[in-house]
Amino acid sequence: MGWPVCRWAPGLLLWACVCPALGERLLVMPVDGSHWLSMKLLVSELARRGHHVLLLIPETSVLIEGSELMRIQRFPVPYSREELSSSLTGFQKDVFQRSPPLTDLLLNVQRLLSFTDMQVIGCEALLYNQTLMEQLKREDFNLLLTDPFLPCGSILADALSLPSVYFLRGLPCGLDLLAAQCPAPVSYVPRFGMGATDRMNFPQRLQNTLMGVVELLLCRVMYRSFDELAARYLNKAVTYRDLLGHGAIWLLRYDFTFEYPKPTMPNMVYIGGINCQKSSGLKEEVEEFVEGSGEHGIVVFTLGSLVQSMPAEKASVFFQAFSQIPQRVLWRYTGELPDHVPENVKLMKWLPQNDLLGHPKARAFITHGGTHGIYEGICHGVPMVMLPLFGDQGDNVHRVASRGVGVVLNIHDITPEMLIDALNTVINESSYKERMVKLSAIHNDRPIEPLDLAVFWTEFVMRNKGAGHLRPAAHDLNWFQYHSLDVIGFLLFVMVIVVMVLIRCCVFCLRRCGRKLQKRKED
Amino acid sequence: MGWPVCRWAPGLLLWACVCPALGERLLVMPVDGSHWLSMKLLVSELARRGHHVLLLIPETSVLIEGSELMRIQRFPVPYSREELSSSLTGFQKDVFQRSPPLTDLLLNVQRLLSFTDMQVIGCEALLYNQTLMEQLKREDFNLLLTDPFLPCGSILADALSLPSVYFLRGLPCGLDLLAAQCPAPVSYVPRFGMGATDRMNFPQRLQNTLMGVVELLLCRVMYRSFDELAARYLNKAVTYRDLLGHGAIWLLRYDFTFEYPKPTMPNMVYIGGINCQKSSGLKEEVEEFVEGSGEHGIVVFTLGSLVQSMPAEKASVFFQAFSQIPQRVLWRYTGELPDHVPENVKLMKWLPQNDLLGHPKARAFITHGGTHGIYEGICHGVPMVMLPLFGDQGDNVHRVASRGVGVVLNIHDITPEMLIDALNTVINESSYKERMVKLSAIHNDRPIEPLDLAVFWTEFVMRNKGAGHLRPAAHDLNWFQYHSLDVIGFLLFVMVIVVMVLIRCCVFCLRRCGRKLQKRKED
Repeated sequence: MGWPVCRWAPGLLLWACVCPALGERLLVMPVDGSHWLSMKLLVSELARRGHHVLLLIPETSVLIEGSELMRIQRFPVPYSREELSSSLTGFQKDVFQRSPPLTDLLLNVQRLLSFTDMQVIGCEALLYNQTLMEQLKREDFNLLLTDPFLPCGSILADALSLPSVYFLRGLPCGLDLLAAQCPAPVSYVPRFGMGATDRMNFPQRLQNTLMGVVELLLCRVMYRSFDELAARYLNKAVTYRDLLGHGAIWLLRYDFTFEYPKPTMPNMVYIGGINCQKSSGLKEEVEEFVEGSGEHGIVVFTLGSLVQSMPAEKASVFFQAFSQIPQRVLWRYTGELPDHVPENVKLMKWLPQNDLLGHPKARAFITHGGTHGIYEGICHGVPMVMLPLFGDQGDNVHRVASRGVGVVLNIHDITPEMLIDALNTVINESSYKERMVKLSAIHNDRPIEPLDLAVFWTEFVMRNKGAGHLRPAAHDLNWFQYHSLDVIGFLLFVMVIVVMVLIRCCVFCLRRCGRKLQKRKED
Repeated sequence: MGWPVCRWAPGLLLWACVCPALGERLLVMPVDGSHWLSMKLLVSELARRGHHVLLLIPETSVLIEGSELMRIQRFPVPYSREELSSSLTGFQKDVFQRSPPLTDLLLNVQRLLSFTDMQVIGCEALLYNQTLMEQLKREDFNLLLTDPFLPCGSILADALSLPSVYFLRGLPCGLDLLAAQCPAPVSYVPRFGMGATDRMNFPQRLQNTLMGVVELLLCRVMYRSFDELAARYLNKAVTYRDLLGHGAIWLLRYDFTFEYPKPTMPNMVYIGGINCQKSSGLKEEVEEFVEGSGEHGIVVFTLGSLVQSMPAEKASVFFQAFSQIPQRVLWRYTGELPDHVPENVKLMKWLPQNDLLGHPKARAFITHGGTHGIYEGICHGVPMVMLPLFGDQGDNVHRVASRGVGVVLNIHDITPEMLIDALNTVINESSYKERMVKLSAIHNDRPIEPLDLAVFWTEFVMRNKGAGHLRPAAHDLNWFQYHSLDVIGFLLFVMVIVVMVLIRCCVFCLRRCGRKLQKRKED
């Protein structure tokens, strides 16, 4: 079975259709938003190589689009795009509101919980859509490629008996490591939101250990409804974590220029920087603005695709700061236009971020700390001023800052002076640029490009119908056995018995000796 | 600084000398014997790419030779080649002598201990050779490439302040994993000599746990003299394990078609099968013998480079068996020639093993189970009959057998019938060949060739003066901290205090209540 790919061939003055014979059949379940931006690169490349791709997405998806090489199948969900959108708008407002540290953590959890709840409803709508499920079965796919941030993929893979490849940055509460049976000692692998590096003092390790326990509990709460759905739909005693553990390959969107070195598993493949490309030319108007910056260069500023607008009073802080720096600023700005925009600031609805960061004039990058942007910064060697907003961004920026290639500011406390200071530091203190250039060189010094690696392992799983030889036997053990608690228990039991027998023997001997002595005395 | 490389240029009728300008300077400390056969491939390729290689070896080395591209520096040691050779001859005789299982383990340990002792003496002779050490310092190397089976390399790397790359299959008592801070849960990572797979029942896990403890103790005993030498020479409190932990990259001569999947670390690179090459043509005489085998094909038989000859009575078992099989046999045989050699057997002093296994007529491979041979078997998809002799070979063959692509025989018990049966099984039971073809396909299905990967990472370390970004922070923790025992201790302490305070409170309350009740009664 092969879906024909048709293109307009100008030389032939006709539509040329190609029917790829060798392509495999991929079912892709992506996550909308910035997650899709990276995954799209892999999916497009797979399609370009002649594989037949079907994108399976809820009808509420905004960013995900098919192409002439990729079919798209939208399934109905019992919530509207407006409902999803309004929940996101509330979310966008939240990030600029100050909240105490613990509340912030709880808020993050609450957001994830509500996200998960919506996903469960969407997943149910897919799984119980019999017509669609029958169609998917008939299409006889070779692989399911999914971002497991959306747990529905694993359930679908099991239902359709497909091997799966995961594409992700990480999962809440470290579920990715748990499911992949990857050890992560609490003594040097910092947990979510810890604000610690891999070098922790005693109080930090104590905090990290406690967070490790909290995460385990959190995981159970957060994925409870998915556990329930999986068990009900697949009609077997199974949790989401079990299903997730069946992933053949984990394509992880980081590497160790960003993440702290830690244990890994044979089926984990590091493709950090997959989104980073050689910068191509800018539009004439933008190029002119950039070139006009002279020796001072430019500052690139964006807070990501999820944050559509910034409250006016917050934006004025940035406008004030920018009016006092010698650099020119390119700002992805979709909010209300103020009365007076400084001359050195160019507001744009969409920013050619990669091309701007790759421009020789780029001096600094103001970012919210999504991995996407951070990797573009690392790739092109541009020091950063970081304003984490939510999710894993706090952890991300901490990693960058701990390498001395960026400065972290708090979006709630920020003043024009603080921003000017931070920009001044990363632009004019040469150590920032030097360390960043070195980090960038190490990141780019790799035996194979991340995209090629991702394509290879996805095709590997299709060719070999899985990657069973990389699946650790730990999956067959329960946690009690995995940690050898039964063995330790048995050994302790034996020791206790031995000690008891020894004590008995001693007591017996002492008594006998005592009696003998008494007898002698009596004699 | 660059050492000129001179070649006879027939076209120019003169010696053409090239002085490579960009090459880095590598100091290489290899281990003699089969270890060198694999490492030589990497070293030769590095030399070919214009790097300046100096092979540093004791004068007793037999197999290691320089070339026009590689300089060689032999250093004197206080034992002769004959002494080394005679210890090896005794060793060769040992392997054909039967010993009870536990004795076998102890014998292995004893062999390693005596090997280590000789290495310590050799290492001392190098380190305290002031002229040579001064020369090495002057040469200003960029990297030390060593097989850490010989612990001297790590001490030298520290003394010369060089980053190091390791090239190995593994180290006794799992020291490689300990030094690299790589977790290896006893519940599914079998220890040395366990004869277990990664799927163990309770008694096996119990045995494995105990072996894990024994290994820890064994490590201390085995490397004690090296610990002492390192601390004395470097004049600091350091153990061999500490020094070993400073290795930038571990090039491991296995992959997960052979080894069971288990945790790994970011600086571990898997290059299993690096020794395997496309088979090139055979010599005419050998090709004729092979082709003459007809539909039955050939059996390739070698027990490795360390075993020079086999006792006559043991050899006769093989001759008897071979005379009864329809296949032709090519046997690497350096012992006494018997009166009658069966017509279908060709004895050779040296076997083009890779080319024979890659020949379409290859039906089975009789091997002692060294990783070198096993990988050639896997690479070319030839099922095996395995006769482990010593060291890690017992573990190796168990891994191959557990994948259903080979049969293990005991060299001590072997009879002609058993050998015929085993050959019959792997040649005529199609499942063996089928599984082997599949395993071979998976092994060969890789994004980058092992040799290229090894070259890349060696050059990476030279380019970047190490691979610090891959070094886990676990190295800065002692074992107490690594396992969070201080944190757990503190939490238990707090829990005890809390429970005690609660009990006190309860007792206090109960007493008060009791008193009140008594008072009321008294009233």
